[in-house]
Amino acid sequence: MDSDPDKWFYDRVSQNLIQLHSIEDVLHSGRTKFQSVEIIRTGSYGLCLVLDGRIQSSEIDEFVYHEALVQPAMIVHPYPERVFIAGGGEGATLREVLSHKTVTRAVMIDIDDEVVALCQRFMPDFSRGSFSDKRTELYHLDARDYLAKCREQFDIMIIDLPEPMEEGPAYLLYTREFYELVRDKLGDDGIICVQSGSASFNELLNFAAVYNTLKSVFPIVCPYQVDVPSFGGPWGFCFASSKLNPVAISPAEVDKRISDRALDGLKLYDGLTHQNMFSLPKHMRSRLNDMTRLITDKEPLYIYHS
Amino acid sequence: MDSDPDKWFYDRVSQNLIQLHSIEDVLHSGRTKFQSVEIIRTGSYGLCLVLDGRIQSSEIDEFVYHEALVQPAMIVHPYPERVFIAGGGEGATLREVLSHKTVTRAVMIDIDDEVVALCQRFMPDFSRGSFSDKRTELYHLDARDYLAKCREQFDIMIIDLPEPMEEGPAYLLYTREFYELVRDKLGDDGIICVQSGSASFNELLNFAAVYNTLKSVFPIVCPYQVDVPSFGGPWGFCFASSKLNPVAISPAEVDKRISDRALDGLKLYDGLTHQNMFSLPKHMRSRLNDMTRLITDKEPLYIYHS
Amino acid sequence: MDSDPDKWFYDRVSQNLIQLHSIEDVLHSGRTKFQSVEIIRTGSYGLCLVLDGRIQSSEIDEFVYHEALVQPAMIVHPYPERVFIAGGGEGATLREVLSHKTVTRAVMIDIDDEVVALCQRFMPDFSRGSFSDKRTELYHLDARDYLAKCREQFDIMIIDLPEPMEEGPAYLLYTREFYELVRDKLGDDGIICVQSGSASFNELLNFAAVYNTLKSVFPIVCPYQVDVPSFGGPWGFCFASSKLNPVAISPAEVDKRISDRALDGLKLYDGLTHQNMFSLPKHMRSRLNDMTRLITDKEPLYIYHS
Amino acid sequence: MDSDPDKWFYDRVSQNLIQLHSIEDVLHSGRTKFQSVEIIRTGSYGLCLVLDGRIQSSEIDEFVYHEALVQPAMIVHPYPERVFIAGGGEGATLREVLSHKTVTRAVMIDIDDEVVALCQRFMPDFSRGSFSDKRTELYHLDARDYLAKCREQFDIMIIDLPEPMEEGPAYLLYTREFYELVRDKLGDDGIICVQSGSASFNELLNFAAVYNTLKSVFPIVCPYQVDVPSFGGPWGFCFASSKLNPVAISPAEVDKRISDRALDGLKLYDGLTHQNMFSLPKHMRSRLNDMTRLITDKEPLYIYHS
Repeated sequence: MDSDPDKWFYDRVSQNLIQLHSIEDVLHSGRTKFQSVEIIRTGSYGLCLVLDGRIQSSEIDEFVYHEALVQPAMIVHPYPERVFIAGGGEGATLREVLSHKTVTRAVMIDIDDEVVALCQRFMPDFSRGSFSDKRTELYHLDARDYLAKCREQFDIMIIDLPEPMEEGPAYLLYTREFYELVRDKLGDDGIICVQSGSASFNELLNFAAVYNTLKSVFPIVCPYQVDVPSFGGPWGFCFASSKLNPVAISPAEVDKRISDRALDGLKLYDGLTHQNMFSLPKHMRSRLNDMTRLITDKEPLYIYHS
Repeated sequence: MDSDPDKWFYDRVSQNLIQLHSIEDVLHSGRTKFQSVEIIRTGSYGLCLVLDGRIQSSEIDEFVYHEALVQPAMIVHPYPERVFIAGGGEGATLREVLSHKTVTRAVMIDIDDEVVALCQRFMPDFSRGSFSDKRTELYHLDARDYLAKCREQFDIMIIDLPEPMEEGPAYLLYTREFYELVRDKLGDDGIICVQSGSASFNELLNFAAVYNTLKSVFPIVCPYQVDVPSFGGPWGFCFASSKLNPVAISPAEVDKRISDRALDGLKLYDGLTHQNMFSLPKHMRSRLNDMTRLITDKEPLYIYHS
Repeated sequence: MDSDPDKWFYDRVSQNLIQLHSIEDVLHSGRTKFQSVEIIRTGSYGLCLVLDGRIQSSEIDEFVYHEALVQPAMIVHPYPERVFIAGGGEGATLREVLSHKTVTRAVMIDIDDEVVALCQRFMPDFSRGSFSDKRTELYHLDARDYLAKCREQFDIMIIDLPEPMEEGPAYLLYTREFYELVRDKLGDDGIICVQSGSASFNELLNFAAVYNTLKSVFPIVCPYQVDVPSFGGPWGFCFASSKLNPVAISPAEVDKRISDRALDGLKLYDGLTHQNMFSLPKHMRSRLNDMTRLITDKEPLYIYHS
Repeated sequence: MDSDPDKWFYDRVSQNLIQLHSIEDVLHSGRTKFQSVEIIRTGSYGLCLVLDGRIQSSEIDEFVYHEALVQPAMIVHPYPERVFIAGGGEGATLREVLSHKTVTRAVMIDIDDEVVALCQRFMPDFSRGSFSDKRTELYHLDARDYLAKCREQFDIMIIDLPEPMEEGPAYLLYTREFYELVRDKLGDDGIICVQSGSASFNELLNFAAVYNTLKSVFPIVCPYQVDVPSFGGPWGFCFASSKLNPVAISPAEVDKRISDRALDGLKLYDGLTHQNMFSLPKHMRSRLNDMTRLITDKEPLYIYHS
């Protein structure tokens, strides 16, 4: 009998919207010191990592999310050598960083060692050996603490964290004070790139707040977006820098750099994709500019999902 | 007590994905000769028109859908006068067409007079008086029959129909034979624009089939997309023409034409939006090109929602 | 196309159980001074009255609920003349009371005049003319206030109220102090009957608390139950009295009284049903006796449904 | 963060009713030669066995179901020695049978050896060692085949099978021809007891059909019911015999036999429970008598759950 799925993952997107994803299998379900962790296989998106009830990445579209998060910064930078990653437990952000041969050192700080271990065990295809690459340094620390004590500079810093939630591990990594710390660790050519939450134009609270907060610290901030089906719609990112502007680079130049650096495994990113991601529709530009909420240590932002 | 919503609209997006939208009110629920019709107010998207169980347009993002469907064709054409619309019961497609003062005649064919009447009664803000504009001719006929008998030519033809479903009213308006009929009614500068279904890269069946079918009839076919939250993700459209190419027009030229034509009410569409919509990400281009299904009268396409 | 229902009523039975009932139509949806009110037609149960998100009675099984609430007390009493009803907005409890020709006076106190008016308008089959019966006196007051001031006695008092919820209108009508007030208004042969919530053995909190609280006031208290499908399972009631014991009456005697009183419209209730309802299974007797929570004005009970 | 459950078991009770049970853990999910099997831990009911998408028994109320299925027949019979069980993979029906010291032989036929093995591994508390009791004979055969070839007689035969579904393993064990075979294996004092599906009065199709079919074969047939929360409401059983009538036995006699046989572990069943279960409410008696569908090999009954 070819019956309907009988196990469903319940994603309360907002008070007025619920998404149910069919579950084929539950590979792991538990709680670490920091958060609840589930690794489930869904009917639509294959293997998914779920932290505190939210899908963090899925087998079928993780390439979209991770290339979008990493590649624009790496390509816009003329020669990225030292890269810092906050979060990114699956190891796929690290994988995208290491695909650049210019990289000599990739420091990844993910506070939750259990999540990293579970991802390596159940989702090895996300990291594809990146954790054993000689250029990788992995620490299980608080990323803000680490940066406060660190005396080095980085070319690229990538913030790949879950949404900020009260009592969650990430909310102090979304504030102006944190971005000021980041700025001090970036050289003139340095770039920070931040995953910034939903880019559905009716749910821009987090995206707009990250954008505005970065603008209070960096002269150049470019929001961009791409559709990630397993997240339920378009997803937002912010690119920020003191000097480098991604919009100034033509599609042809993007394609040339990809070719020069022999990045032959890209599935999402090329010149035209770059142009698409950075040219937001008019109503999104209006809304991002109309929203003025800043995030500070004193007034952090929490995204609730009741 | 501030409790959870207790009435929900169930949208079976696919076998493995269910979306539930909270319902605030049901303004109408019934069945016409052709389809089931509901007009509901949802918590997320306001007033929605639902045909055969699928949201057709919603108060908060209908401007996205209708500007995206109509404006690129109108702007790319140098001087659109005669416009044909198939479907479009809400009257919002008509509204976008009539916003161009060049238009002298707008023929709208929607087979279902009850849907049109219900939309005028319950959703007057969608049409904003367009049905009583002197340039409008509204007929409740089968659009294919009408075109077969019609001896005129049009500058722009817009196909704004629900997805093709078995026994639904629309499936014979998605075939190669229908597009051949359309081509015969278009002058050299003529453009057809077709709403083409989901543009989520894992649900491209309909979008790809419309794209391929149009390519078998027209020399220039450009797929494009925009995010429509109430539809559950990015939505696809196809622009086709014998001579005019939307990708050849720069953002600055788009903005100039908008200004020359004094279109001051646009919320979605401008030069940068045009660039965004027509520059599909790499993986979507690959998939659209890899899928080769054509739609013909003998082998029509049905989109099922069990 | 014979598709699935697309509108559903969401009933959060408990943290771990959700019931979805298909909605065919929403006849009314609003809020009175006291509570939210909806009148919906469901696929399974027909017309339903919903107060604060909970189904109060449904077209297909209201006879089960209302006969079970009213008839045992009326039949066990030798000659019921004066009857008091708290709540019962649909008018169906009143209808059952008035079916006894011995009744000379039926005082119904329902605080919410809007609910009573809506029921008469949209659900006239529930009251079947009872509100215009000469024996009926209907007041829109607080039932506890009314009783405190009232100088009469009643033979039967029926408490037909929604579950107690914080800030809801009913919670002070479930306390020991209220039952003491009731006892003072009942003669020696008087009977109180209270709708007591779910009788599923894993959700007995409310039923057990009402049972225990009544036992602290009356010498004879008999819990009983019947399955009400639209409530999601078996439903509990408590019969309490100073002298009359329903378990002492044989099925044959019940049938004789029904016949003597010419009650020929009963669909649920007869001698064997009486025996069934009052003989609770062993595990339910154990649980009701093991639970000792009392309800007082100082420590009221709230049933939450998040 | 104390968030809502995010994994749910979807039980499509009928076209118009869906139940969602929260899932804490999935212990097993797979498919045997005969059916899909899942062992899940739910928030409301603890460990559950799910076959073909339907909950078969749950940790918190399996005692209700299994005592109700087995004990009335065992107690009504004066001295049960040889017992036959069809189905019952969890081993709990067997456990109830073996609690009677009079039993010398318990033959259990469950076609699906994988289900039996999974239950022993994941749910050992359901069988509590019964599979290694010397009186047990377990065969993985088709129960009808076995009986057709078998030359013995039994005192009690218990049919503990999933609902009949097209292409499911059980539908030919619900027909008149099967009950005729059963009758030939029962002595004069023999009793058959059949789990008969939902006893909600608006979903009596299966219960009524089993009842009517047994009536076409046995002179005494008594339908009875008990509430099983994890099944979503009251559940029906049929007791049939050539000579023995359960309604003729008083509650006191039931209690005496329980005591005489030293059955000290019963949680559901005693004299009053017996009386409750066999005294169906009036409207249920009416409906069961009004429905006349018989089940035969030529016209089997399938219970669908789309």
